[in-house]
Amino acid sequence: MNIDKANTAATEKMIEARAILVGIGKALDVIPGMRENLLLHAGPPITWERSSGPMRGAITGALIFEGKVSNEDEAKALVESGEIELEPCHHHQAVGPMAGVTSPSMSVYVIENEVHGNRAYSNLNEGYGKVLRYGAYDEEVQTRLRWMEEVMAPVLKQAIESSGGIDIKALLSEALHMGDEGHNRNKAGSILFLKALAPHIAKVSESSQTTSEILAALGDNALAVLNPVMAACKAMADAAHGVEGSTIVTTMARNGTDFGIRVSGLGEQWFTAPAQIPKGLYFPGYGDEDANPDIGDSTITETAGIGGFAMAAAPAIVTFVSGKPQDAIDASMEMYEISFTEHKAFTIPAFDFRGTPTGIDLRKVVELGTTPRVNTGIAHKRAGIGQVGAGLVRPPMAIFEEALVAFAEKYGI
Amino acid sequence: MNIDKANTAATEKMIEARAILVGIGKALDVIPGMRENLLLHAGPPITWERSSGPMRGAITGALIFEGKVSNEDEAKALVESGEIELEPCHHHQAVGPMAGVTSPSMSVYVIENEVHGNRAYSNLNEGYGKVLRYGAYDEEVQTRLRWMEEVMAPVLKQAIESSGGIDIKALLSEALHMGDEGHNRNKAGSILFLKALAPHIAKVSESSQTTSEILAALGDNALAVLNPVMAACKAMADAAHGVEGSTIVTTMARNGTDFGIRVSGLGEQWFTAPAQIPKGLYFPGYGDEDANPDIGDSTITETAGIGGFAMAAAPAIVTFVSGKPQDAIDASMEMYEISFTEHKAFTIPAFDFRGTPTGIDLRKVVELGTTPRVNTGIAHKRAGIGQVGAGLVRPPMAIFEEALVAFAEKYGI
Repeated sequence: MNIDKANTAATEKMIEARAILVGIGKALDVIPGMRENLLLHAGPPITWERSSGPMRGAITGALIFEGKVSNEDEAKALVESGEIELEPCHHHQAVGPMAGVTSPSMSVYVIENEVHGNRAYSNLNEGYGKVLRYGAYDEEVQTRLRWMEEVMAPVLKQAIESSGGIDIKALLSEALHMGDEGHNRNKAGSILFLKALAPHIAKVSESSQTTSEILAALGDNALAVLNPVMAACKAMADAAHGVEGSTIVTTMARNGTDFGIRVSGLGEQWFTAPAQIPKGLYFPGYGDEDANPDIGDSTITETAGIGGFAMAAAPAIVTFVSGKPQDAIDASMEMYEISFTEHKAFTIPAFDFRGTPTGIDLRKVVELGTTPRVNTGIAHKRAGIGQVGAGLVRPPMAIFEEALVAFAEKYGI
Repeated sequence: MNIDKANTAATEKMIEARAILVGIGKALDVIPGMRENLLLHAGPPITWERSSGPMRGAITGALIFEGKVSNEDEAKALVESGEIELEPCHHHQAVGPMAGVTSPSMSVYVIENEVHGNRAYSNLNEGYGKVLRYGAYDEEVQTRLRWMEEVMAPVLKQAIESSGGIDIKALLSEALHMGDEGHNRNKAGSILFLKALAPHIAKVSESSQTTSEILAALGDNALAVLNPVMAACKAMADAAHGVEGSTIVTTMARNGTDFGIRVSGLGEQWFTAPAQIPKGLYFPGYGDEDANPDIGDSTITETAGIGGFAMAAAPAIVTFVSGKPQDAIDASMEMYEISFTEHKAFTIPAFDFRGTPTGIDLRKVVELGTTPRVNTGIAHKRAGIGQVGAGLVRPPMAIFEEALVAFAEKYGI
């Protein structure tokens, strides 16, 4: 069996995939397998019992949003009774930042990979402060979610259609030359996104007041494009999945309790172990003792060759996640060691436009004892609070070792 | 006499100056000394006879715009008769990119330095293609100028007022962390400008169609913010001007024929010599033989510590001006050698957030034989054509030597 050949095939698909934002739809209408009593969440499968505070908070908030419960106890009862089911976003071609909780009536971005025909989905970004994805769920959170759903989403949907689709891969290529790494720093990408949509928003919106509010909401949110970017990376990673004999990691995701990976040549099997606490910078008044373990599907960015892997493109990110600009250079250099190849569309100016390290090779991770680097936000460990900082984290080595053992068994090596 | 003390005073003023975009007004109404029969132009003083092709083209276009002539011959006659007068933008607290021709009824941005109370002005940016500032003047150019004047400027004026003013210095600080150097690369800055204005444009504009057109015009123009940035730099440089005993260069400007400088401690005297042809990359079908000598007031950016001096912040600019990312690093490193100090607000992530080299010291330029580096666009040498490329250029050494001689004479050194 030729693993290198399989990995070449998988990474070529990942790199050649395109990712066009073609529309917005209700999760229930557009996400495959979505149903009335289902909530999607970040990371590998999880139960209420094993869920962390922010995941429980986000589930509660989503069920309040759906009008099914009014508090956390009722949410717990509904989920534990089995009346509401939980499944990973990743089982439905979807991804969500932090808790990633997506309920049937929420609007989601629709990304189409025009090269391989697959689609991917992600919910809308709420911005900063008290937000559902970090486990906050009070009236402030609900009000914003309703505004996004009732006011913003219908306009964005029409604006995207009016634009003829937005090439998120091209946007990312450009943003990496503007100091973004595409995961924790999406400052340039978010205003490139605003730039692409703004004329269409003005055209389709029914009132100038609404236009103004939506332009402000997108422009003031330096993570506005994170969700379409994640769905774009999901479309790329999915294109690389299912290649017989490939050791390329095609999923990395955390649910706030476990960190899980899946591998191109190992089908739908998850390899999981306890998620770690990120190291980074905390907002005033918070510290390590407040931090929840690593959470979110946003590691799909590193899986697709950006985020922590492209940190050298974003030296200014260290003001947010701690460290020196040289650490950003070192992070990308280290990731070349565990990656199978280099990206063709995502390049790093400081490295003379070398492609970003792309396609995490299970074999190299285990051989070198080097796990992927991940940039991430940090959630408070209790439900209802929200973000407390941002930093860096790595997955547990055990999951790569287990996956490699499973690979050896499956392929009789 | 303590030159270092004088230079400290001058550069502190330059660095501490603020630059708030407070409004837009007709040149005739807001620029000090502007009058009906006056055209402002880039660089040191020039006559029609000594003007280059793009300068003559821009003068012609501005006079057509004013309804005073219908072709180049008429423009020549009007200017040579003395009926229309030419004076440098720099004599009127103003700056203009490339030919920089500003006529009485054109709208200009108004920048206020709230620390020292001085104001600075610059015209509106036309975008790419056939544009007045590169010496094109046909109906396409006129149509765009009229649209800018009649449709865009009134809305931008109200939007700026509605915003309460836009801090261009803060915008620049941010843009330097997003891959801009602020002169030839204003990609991030221009969409930060769009982001700041967009909600206000939607609010004040009378039709959604106009809103959409203006958002597209700003968003599609990666130089949209260049003119406010130049006026901001002018406000900073002017704050540093007129410090007795200072060898800091406070003006560098080219009219397409001559390169001129002025020095803080030497009053209004220009030191000039023939401008050089930039070296760079040409658009398809053009080459060195088409290039006009260096032209424009945009060297005010380098004068204020950005542009070529901040190139290390913008490694991706080499795809536009030629060279390797390492050349961008080297350019900034070299400029530290001829600069008096480092900026406090403008920093370079790749240099561990070291301030940009700021305050060109006449003494160091002459002593080291190192002239400032300038990023620039390249105009076709004939009137009526437009931009043919972009590249790098340096001022002639002679003007620094002459200025130093004049300094020694004035101060009896």
